[in-house]
Amino acid sequence: MESLLYLFLLAPICAIIALLFVWKQARNVMSYPEGTDKMKAIAMAIRNGARTYLKRQYAVVSIFFLIMMIILGIMAAFGLLTPFVPFAFITGGFFSGLSGFIGMKIATYANSRTANAASEGLNRGLRVAFSSGSVMGFTVVGLGLLDISIWFFLLRFVFYASSPEALQVEQITYAMLTFGMGASSMALFMRVGGGIFTKAADVGADLVGKVEAGIPEDDPRNPAVIADNVGDNVGDVAGMGADLYESYVGSIIATAALAVAAGYGFNGVVIPMAMAAIGIIASVIGTFLVRSGEETDQKVLLSALRRGTVFAAVLTAVVALPLVGFVLGWDHIGVFFAVLSGLLAGVLIGIFTEYYTSDIYKPTKELSDSTQTGSATVIIGGVSLGMQSTFVPVVIVCVSLLISFYASGGFSNFNMGLYGVGISAVGMLSTLGITLATDAYGPVADNAGGIAQMCKLDPEVRQRTDALDSLGNTTAATGKGFAIGSAALTALALIAAFVDEVYLIDPGHQFNLNITNPPLLAGLFLGAMLPFLFSAMTMKAVGRAAQSIVVEVRRQFREIIGLMEGTAEPEYDRCVELCTRAAQKEMIVPALSAIIAPILTGVLLGVDAVAGLLCGLTVSGFILAIMMANSGGAWDNAKKFIESGQHGGKGSDAHKAAVVGDTVGDPFKDTSGPSINILIKLVSMVSIVFASLIMKTALLPMLLK
Amino acid sequence: MESLLYLFLLAPICAIIALLFVWKQARNVMSYPEGTDKMKAIAMAIRNGARTYLKRQYAVVSIFFLIMMIILGIMAAFGLLTPFVPFAFITGGFFSGLSGFIGMKIATYANSRTANAASEGLNRGLRVAFSSGSVMGFTVVGLGLLDISIWFFLLRFVFYASSPEALQVEQITYAMLTFGMGASSMALFMRVGGGIFTKAADVGADLVGKVEAGIPEDDPRNPAVIADNVGDNVGDVAGMGADLYESYVGSIIATAALAVAAGYGFNGVVIPMAMAAIGIIASVIGTFLVRSGEETDQKVLLSALRRGTVFAAVLTAVVALPLVGFVLGWDHIGVFFAVLSGLLAGVLIGIFTEYYTSDIYKPTKELSDSTQTGSATVIIGGVSLGMQSTFVPVVIVCVSLLISFYASGGFSNFNMGLYGVGISAVGMLSTLGITLATDAYGPVADNAGGIAQMCKLDPEVRQRTDALDSLGNTTAATGKGFAIGSAALTALALIAAFVDEVYLIDPGHQFNLNITNPPLLAGLFLGAMLPFLFSAMTMKAVGRAAQSIVVEVRRQFREIIGLMEGTAEPEYDRCVELCTRAAQKEMIVPALSAIIAPILTGVLLGVDAVAGLLCGLTVSGFILAIMMANSGGAWDNAKKFIESGQHGGKGSDAHKAAVVGDTVGDPFKDTSGPSINILIKLVSMVSIVFASLIMKTALLPMLLK
Repeated sequence: MESLLYLFLLAPICAIIALLFVWKQARNVMSYPEGTDKMKAIAMAIRNGARTYLKRQYAVVSIFFLIMMIILGIMAAFGLLTPFVPFAFITGGFFSGLSGFIGMKIATYANSRTANAASEGLNRGLRVAFSSGSVMGFTVVGLGLLDISIWFFLLRFVFYASSPEALQVEQITYAMLTFGMGASSMALFMRVGGGIFTKAADVGADLVGKVEAGIPEDDPRNPAVIADNVGDNVGDVAGMGADLYESYVGSIIATAALAVAAGYGFNGVVIPMAMAAIGIIASVIGTFLVRSGEETDQKVLLSALRRGTVFAAVLTAVVALPLVGFVLGWDHIGVFFAVLSGLLAGVLIGIFTEYYTSDIYKPTKELSDSTQTGSATVIIGGVSLGMQSTFVPVVIVCVSLLISFYASGGFSNFNMGLYGVGISAVGMLSTLGITLATDAYGPVADNAGGIAQMCKLDPEVRQRTDALDSLGNTTAATGKGFAIGSAALTALALIAAFVDEVYLIDPGHQFNLNITNPPLLAGLFLGAMLPFLFSAMTMKAVGRAAQSIVVEVRRQFREIIGLMEGTAEPEYDRCVELCTRAAQKEMIVPALSAIIAPILTGVLLGVDAVAGLLCGLTVSGFILAIMMANSGGAWDNAKKFIESGQHGGKGSDAHKAAVVGDTVGDPFKDTSGPSINILIKLVSMVSIVFASLIMKTALLPMLLK
Repeated sequence: MESLLYLFLLAPICAIIALLFVWKQARNVMSYPEGTDKMKAIAMAIRNGARTYLKRQYAVVSIFFLIMMIILGIMAAFGLLTPFVPFAFITGGFFSGLSGFIGMKIATYANSRTANAASEGLNRGLRVAFSSGSVMGFTVVGLGLLDISIWFFLLRFVFYASSPEALQVEQITYAMLTFGMGASSMALFMRVGGGIFTKAADVGADLVGKVEAGIPEDDPRNPAVIADNVGDNVGDVAGMGADLYESYVGSIIATAALAVAAGYGFNGVVIPMAMAAIGIIASVIGTFLVRSGEETDQKVLLSALRRGTVFAAVLTAVVALPLVGFVLGWDHIGVFFAVLSGLLAGVLIGIFTEYYTSDIYKPTKELSDSTQTGSATVIIGGVSLGMQSTFVPVVIVCVSLLISFYASGGFSNFNMGLYGVGISAVGMLSTLGITLATDAYGPVADNAGGIAQMCKLDPEVRQRTDALDSLGNTTAATGKGFAIGSAALTALALIAAFVDEVYLIDPGHQFNLNITNPPLLAGLFLGAMLPFLFSAMTMKAVGRAAQSIVVEVRRQFREIIGLMEGTAEPEYDRCVELCTRAAQKEMIVPALSAIIAPILTGVLLGVDAVAGLLCGLTVSGFILAIMMANSGGAWDNAKKFIESGQHGGKGSDAHKAAVVGDTVGDPFKDTSGPSINILIKLVSMVSIVFASLIMKTALLPMLLK
């Protein structure tokens, strides 16, 4: 096969285009006026809260990265790793964190501007919010692809310039995996920390404000209201940014890591990078198609957003055909069908997510009917809805897995098939720039609504921001479909990469991957249990943090005289401070457990068990993540459905029952559920990076010798 | 190895001893007086309701068995099965159903007698209830071992008397697996149907009676109160009986099925049968140690029960040592450690279940604290408690799996190791006679309490029955530990048996059991999803059925004049009738899906995928079953803890929040959770029985050829 190395240049070029587009969109957002002084003041408070949170977050996480650097450095000194690994690790974390930071920064500037623009018209509001979302979307893909390109360039043309090709590819992909591990670690901290912050504030604000004091949502008298708005930014924006950065680079590097075994050499590394580059251009063009009239009809707005994403996907698919044919050769054109199956699987999972969680379809409608018989039936209904909703996505992933494996030649060459599985994840995420933009504008609209409420703007403004927000829930469902689906496929590619890595370290290793092999089965059990344990930890953390907010909010209502009458200001800062502290403290153990679990399993039971662990984790994590996301989404929308006037509307017993469902759903869908996606990949990458350590120290295989 | 075939005679002898003991204990129960006329009338109403239910249940299930007989008959006609298979299938179902029937029959005679005896003293109450429980326990083990012995005798000494030994063992174990499939099918119907009945009645009675009408539990004015008591019998007694019959015979035959591959021949078949026989004798002796004084202190009562079970376990273990040495030879004495590890694992899982669900320990105490902040935090707390509680049992099963595998020689002979895994499940269940007795007396005490309440007996009587009932919850936790732990180990043995069966059918079959093989991975995903889908179906069924009860109870309160004042009788029959009809209707689809899932997966994707399906199902089913059982148990006990006067006691807001948790927990712990255990094994046995069909028709392998 002819080496088409120069095509890798597409990646940095398109990455820079993405970042230029970010700059343009950011300027666009900033050109809108911020509104009244009160709006400015509130936006400032939210911004400050978010900044303080992230500053602390980075301080805590730095310690973790420093320790990991030292550990990796020691391993490198013992020859277990190449010396680039610690640096690759840190850049992955840095860029992931930076993506979250930039996305959050612009979101906290865009919220008041969106509220202000919405007071002039719906389309203006959409434009500001969507521009802010696209800053996030293109920051993620731009920085992700840039980081990959830089490392690729340095390793290929500087450090390993004179090594033979096979060694080059191996070293490059290994370094990339380490930087993926850095990105995943950062993403997990950001998701878990942000998720705990946002839900502690939300649950705390609701439990005392709505339920006990009987004041509406986003009421400025609620001491936790600013914390709640800060939470939207640090959880739903910064957390999501870091998360999807990780997914994006994860799919690319997992595929690249399979290139050698598949026999594609550098061309196999170039393909996912070039696919991502094409996806960026297609996404930029797609964003220009997102515009709407002045109707608030959700379907019109939705079709405006859909136009952009569908266009980008189709364009990417069309260009992928000649790309695959040209780079891998037309006899490997089956890989193109892997791309297609990935794209299609992402879209289909998104559609089914929407079916299960949107109040225009039967499942959520039935769930809102169950509020008639109290909160217990709402919970039973929501849990069973979530469980049932796992069926179709599992079938879709299985079909996509089989198609991409066999279409890519898996029957005659196993490794080529696995490479195809990786490519299908890349296909799914190639248009992330625009899909993330349609997803990330939701929290901005949510914040804008809060500001409109707090500043007592015309109710029409709130209606418009609500229309935008509600639309955001739907597009977020699609976005979650991509995130979950790609996580499963990426994780499968990473499992294959782990197996490759073991053979690379010791070509004569006696790997027993037979599913009836007891250590592997034990790993399977442990891996499948991990997402449950992890979710328990994160949910408990939210519970504890929310508890502390409840106590504080109750104290303020009791001690601050004139608060309920609106003559005295609550101490917003205290709640932000409490959430920040709780999130920092609570994120440590779950995040560390993701690093420790595979190493401990490996050191005790050997690499067979780690392979089992990864499979068990991927499978059960995928299912649990979907269940939690969909239960949570359906509870949220069932509540909104009742608030729209069904079953007695706001304040009815049905509404109270629905609020219980929504409150339970909050940590499900915004803390535990999305963190599982990252967990799956982080554990896989840790296993690969620490494979040599595990193989040298594994206890059970030693005992059996 | 010398064949020690004659030792199999231990099995029918001890089975008959068990059944004689049943007869003695039943006479003992019947010798107690039934109490006042009112008590007799209520007991009669419950008995009639339960009988009507079971009659209908058997009628519906007969149709299923008839259809399956025809299908198996056709397959036998085409030479895909031996002609004994259809008959083995039907006897398994018949005996499983019979176990449930006998246990339920005696329980419905023992409830009023227990209430009456409790009015004379706690110890008398315990004796009646425990005798009734032991009828159930020894019926299950007696009938189970008898059925196995009869088939063994017929096949070995009549039909295959002149065949070579290898063929004999193969044919005998295959027929046994079919009879296991019959038992599992019946058990699934009984568990799901009974679970839906009992929880629909319970939830329906609580939602309207306790919450809306504000009358206490077991109040005779509640139209669903008899249905609720019937439910305890058809769900918790008959359902559990059929369930554990299935577990018991399942573990024995799964182990027997591995005897050939392990190279043990008939001796390997004899060992699990002889172990079970010894367990029966040890259990009978153990029951004589169960007696208490007149103190209601839970610890004293508990130690009375524990004395019996611990004695039986120790005695079995002691006798197992020479048995293994004598039958398999002293160089295979490692198998004894598999027995020990199984026994120990069952006990440890039980202890941890108790830790997570009893209100004397921290987790449930914390859960009851969370009622202070409303029902949402109770739900979040209970779900995360259940998720967290999966960690230790998973570790225990993994350790037990590895010990029993390697101690039985798994390192040098893979199949011997797998045989050891099966033996550890047999060890765990060998003393089922007494563990089930301590478990099955709980619902009797529960019913007795209901009767005491309805007949307005001295409150002291209710206190005594409550003490017995509460103790029953604790022993039930231990019982569940055995049921769940043995299900996991039995299922692993069945997976190995499936692989053996495939090779038996086609020794040259290209089995790819590598965990990275895509069809196997797809199976893993599908299998892991199955318990979620199944739980969703059963929970929704409970929801729908409860809904119909709510409507009916509300109607009776509205239409029957004088009901609330106690001057008119409610129409109890209507609620029993409704529950019966709902349960019959709703159990069909979940039960059928367990049969169809493995066949469909196999026909579409081949046997590799079925192997993946079984592993995914076992792993995720085990975890989900534990989670649901422990969440449900903790919610139940958190509510009882509050009812004992904590956090404001009955009627407080905390209590209302706790009732929501308990209501959600009902289908978790009594319908969906326990059914998963059966599901795991039924799917495995269906896969083995239909292996030849699957191999002949598998689509994907054909396409790839």
